[in-house]
Amino acid sequence: MTDRPSIPAPPAAALDAIRRAVGPKGVIEGADRAPYLSEWRARWPGEAALIVAPASTQEVAKVVSICAAHGVAITPQGGNTGLVGGQIPYGNEILLSLRRMRTIRDVSPLDNTMTLDAGVALAEAQQAAREAGRLFPLSIGSEGSCQIGGVVSTNAGGVNVLRYGNMRDLVLGLEAVLPDGRVWNGLKRLRKDNTGYDLKQLFIGGEGTLGIVTSVVVKLFPLPRETVTVFAGVPDPAAAVALLSHAQDETGGLVSSFELMGRLCLDLVLRHIPDTRDPLGAPHPWHVLMAFSSSGGGLRARVEALLESALEKGLLADAAIAQNEREGADFWRLRHTISEALNHEGLGARHDVSVPTADIPAFLEAAGAEVASLAPGARVAAFGHIGDGNVHYDVVPPDGAAPDALDGLRPQIEERVYDVIARMGGSISAEHGVGRHRRAAIAKRKSAVELDMMRAIKKALDPQGIMNPGKML
Amino acid sequence: MTDRPSIPAPPAAALDAIRRAVGPKGVIEGADRAPYLSEWRARWPGEAALIVAPASTQEVAKVVSICAAHGVAITPQGGNTGLVGGQIPYGNEILLSLRRMRTIRDVSPLDNTMTLDAGVALAEAQQAAREAGRLFPLSIGSEGSCQIGGVVSTNAGGVNVLRYGNMRDLVLGLEAVLPDGRVWNGLKRLRKDNTGYDLKQLFIGGEGTLGIVTSVVVKLFPLPRETVTVFAGVPDPAAAVALLSHAQDETGGLVSSFELMGRLCLDLVLRHIPDTRDPLGAPHPWHVLMAFSSSGGGLRARVEALLESALEKGLLADAAIAQNEREGADFWRLRHTISEALNHEGLGARHDVSVPTADIPAFLEAAGAEVASLAPGARVAAFGHIGDGNVHYDVVPPDGAAPDALDGLRPQIEERVYDVIARMGGSISAEHGVGRHRRAAIAKRKSAVELDMMRAIKKALDPQGIMNPGKML
Repeated sequence: MTDRPSIPAPPAAALDAIRRAVGPKGVIEGADRAPYLSEWRARWPGEAALIVAPASTQEVAKVVSICAAHGVAITPQGGNTGLVGGQIPYGNEILLSLRRMRTIRDVSPLDNTMTLDAGVALAEAQQAAREAGRLFPLSIGSEGSCQIGGVVSTNAGGVNVLRYGNMRDLVLGLEAVLPDGRVWNGLKRLRKDNTGYDLKQLFIGGEGTLGIVTSVVVKLFPLPRETVTVFAGVPDPAAAVALLSHAQDETGGLVSSFELMGRLCLDLVLRHIPDTRDPLGAPHPWHVLMAFSSSGGGLRARVEALLESALEKGLLADAAIAQNEREGADFWRLRHTISEALNHEGLGARHDVSVPTADIPAFLEAAGAEVASLAPGARVAAFGHIGDGNVHYDVVPPDGAAPDALDGLRPQIEERVYDVIARMGGSISAEHGVGRHRRAAIAKRKSAVELDMMRAIKKALDPQGIMNPGKML
Repeated sequence: MTDRPSIPAPPAAALDAIRRAVGPKGVIEGADRAPYLSEWRARWPGEAALIVAPASTQEVAKVVSICAAHGVAITPQGGNTGLVGGQIPYGNEILLSLRRMRTIRDVSPLDNTMTLDAGVALAEAQQAAREAGRLFPLSIGSEGSCQIGGVVSTNAGGVNVLRYGNMRDLVLGLEAVLPDGRVWNGLKRLRKDNTGYDLKQLFIGGEGTLGIVTSVVVKLFPLPRETVTVFAGVPDPAAAVALLSHAQDETGGLVSSFELMGRLCLDLVLRHIPDTRDPLGAPHPWHVLMAFSSSGGGLRARVEALLESALEKGLLADAAIAQNEREGADFWRLRHTISEALNHEGLGARHDVSVPTADIPAFLEAAGAEVASLAPGARVAAFGHIGDGNVHYDVVPPDGAAPDALDGLRPQIEERVYDVIARMGGSISAEHGVGRHRRAAIAKRKSAVELDMMRAIKKALDPQGIMNPGKML
C-alpha cells in the first residue's frame, strides 16, 4: 500500500457542472479555502480540485451524481476536527463540506428521538435536546465545532460512552447519498426493525468511504436531575479497575464517566495550564475522575458511602467530591486539558488504544517495558476512558529534552505499542478512527479475512472507488 | 420473486465428504430428523439433503468449505424457535445445526463480558451471568430452548429492550464461518474499536444469509437488587404512552419493561389459560405491565409516588403492585400466555410491527379502521413492547366463529395493516425477522435503493448464494 493513492485529475466539465449544481453560495474559493485543507495540528495538509458546500440532500445527490458520471473522487468533511486526517483530501478530490446543512428536522421528547442534518454542530444538538427536557449524551472535546455527520462517520466516543455508548449506539436511522448519487432514506425513528441487513451500520464509522451521511435520527434520554463528580487518588491502575466495578455495583450502573490519569498528566496540566490546582492534598501515583448521574434522589449519599467502602478496601487513597458545578467543571478541566498540556512537551508518540477493561493494568505494564527499553528516559502520559478500556497512551520526551527528541523513534514506539495491543486482542484505534494516519497499520495488522471482507463491501457499494479514496482502506 | 428458490440437488460426493467431516456423532438420521424440519406451528414444513451438527468452529468451517467447493446450499439452525421459517430448509440444502457447540468460553465480571458458542441456550447464558453476579438482560418467551447463535442471527428483542436494547446492542464481538469456509475471528471483548467497518453488524440480524455465527462476546450488566412489577388499567393507548414517558422521567430511566395489552388479550387469557386472574378489581379497556429495576434502595417508594401522580394526571385508572416474586410472576404470566390464548381462537392474521412510540395510538386507530372495513366482527388483540414502539397486532375471528374464519382474508388484512405501517414510517417486522414468511412483503415494500444495497452486500460476501437461500432476500 502506498501512502498516497493515485487519484485522477477531474475533467473541467465535471467541475463546472458541480459549480452549477450548488450555485455560487455553495462554492468556497480563494482565501476561504485554507481552513478546509488543514486540520488543527497541520499534520496532513491537503489540496482539493474544488470545495463545495451543498445546501441540501438533493444538492449533495446532484454533486455525487456528477462525480460518479465522471469518476471524480470526493472527500466529505464535517467540522474538520478529526484526528487521523480522514477529512483532508490529497489534491484531485473535490471536498464536500456538510456545513450548510444545519437543520434540526425534528425533536420528539415522547419518542426520545431527534432528527438532525449532518452539519448540525454536536453542541447545538445537545442544546436542542436539553430544551426539550431530554439528554443527548454524546460529549467530546470538539463538541463546539464538530458536526453530527462527522460524529456518525467516525463513530465518535467521548466521556459518556460507559453509560450511553458510542455514537453507533445512539443512531436509530440515517440518510445517505450513495456513491452513485442515489439517496438512501433510512431515516427511521424505530427502536426495532428486523427487515434485513442493518445498512446504517456501514455508514457509522465508515469514514465517508461508502457514501455521504446527510441526516440522522438519534436517541434521547431522560435528563439527569443530580450529578456527582469525584476526583480520587488511587494506588495503581488495578485499583482503578476494581474501583469502577465497585462503583457500578454500589450504584447500580449510575457511573456515567470514569477517567483515569497518571501522575504525569496531572503534573503537566498543573505546570502548563493556568488556573489549575490539584483537588487533593497530597500527590498520588494515579487519579480517577468519576461522574455519577441520576434522576432519583440521594445520589450524593450513595456516592459518599461507596467512596468510604472503597477507601476501606484500599481501592482509593483519597477523594474529593465537587461541592458545586464550578468545582465539578474544574475537575473536568484537569482531564480535558491533558492533550494541550502534552503539546507543550512535544508530539512524541501518541496512541488511542483499547483492551478489555480488566487488562488495562497488564497493558500499561507491558507497553511501559517496551517504551523503557526503546527510549530510556521517555515519559509515559497515560489517561483516558478506562471504563471503556480505552487508553490514550502518550509517550513524551524526557523532562527537559527538546520537544522533537522522540520524533525519530516514533514509528518504532508505535510498532511496539501496537504489538502489545495485538497480543492482548485490543484495538489500535479505539475512537479516533483510521483515516490517513493508521491506514498502513490497519493494512498490516488486520487479518486477511477481515481485509477481504472490508474490500468486498467497499467494492460492492463503491465500485469506482470515488468515495474518500486513500482513507481507511 | 417466487416463494420457492431453485436450489440444485447436492452431489453425493459432497454429502459423503460432509459426513466424514463431522463424523458419525455429527450426522442426524432417521426419526431424529423430524424435529429439525418443522417448527412448532408447522407452518413451513421442510426437507434437507442432510442434517449435520458439527462439534466445533473448525468442523463448521470444514463443512462449509465442502459446500462452497460443490455449490451446496446451507441452512443454519439454532434452537428452531424462529417464527418466520428462516431456519427451515426447502429440501436440497444441508441443514447445519449448532446445537453441539455449547461451550461457555469465558465469563469476565470485571470486564462485564461473556463469550459463548452459538449453541448455548439463552437460559444457560442468563444463568452463567447470574452465577458471576451479573445480568445478561435479553429475555424472550423461547429462552429455554433458543440458542445464542439464533438470537444473534435474528437480532432478537424481548421484554427488556427498553432498558438494555436488542441483541444487536448486546454483542461486542463475533466469530463467523464465511460462505467460502474461512473463519472470521471478530471475537473482540472491546467497548471501542474504530478500525474499519463494523463487520459483525452484518451477521447480527443477517438470518444466516451471509455466514454462520459460531461464537459471540456479549455485554453483561450489574444485577438489579430490587425489582418492582406493576399491573395497571389505563383508559387508552395514548395514556399508556404518556404513562411511559412519565414513569421514565420520575425514575430516571429505571423502567425495564413496559408492555401494553388490550382488554381482549386479558379476556382470552382468563378464558383459556388455567389459574389466571385479573389483578385489578374492575375491567379496563387497556392494561399495562410495567417492571422497574434498580440496585439502589427505595425503588418501591418511588414507583408508588409515580403511580399516584399518574393517577392524578389521568394516565392510569387503577394499579396493582406485585407484593412478592410469585405475584410478579403471575402478572407476567398474563402477558406471556397471550399468544397461546389466541391460538385457541384461530390463527387469524398476526403482525409484529413497530412505529415510533408516540404514534402507537394513531397506528391502532388507523389499523383498526382497516380491519373493521375488511372483516366486520373480527376482533383485534393488540399487545406488545410499546416502550419500543413494537405492537403484536393480531386479528382473530369474531367471537364464536370458526378458528379458520379469517384464513381467506389473511393476505388482504396483512396488506392493509402493512400499508398503514408504511404510511407511518414503521417496520413490518419489528422483531421476528423476514425468513420465508415476509420475504415477498420485503421485496415489495423496501425501496429499490435499499434492496440494491442488500443484494450488493449479499453478492459481495456470498457470490454463489449458498447461504440460506430463499430467506430474507
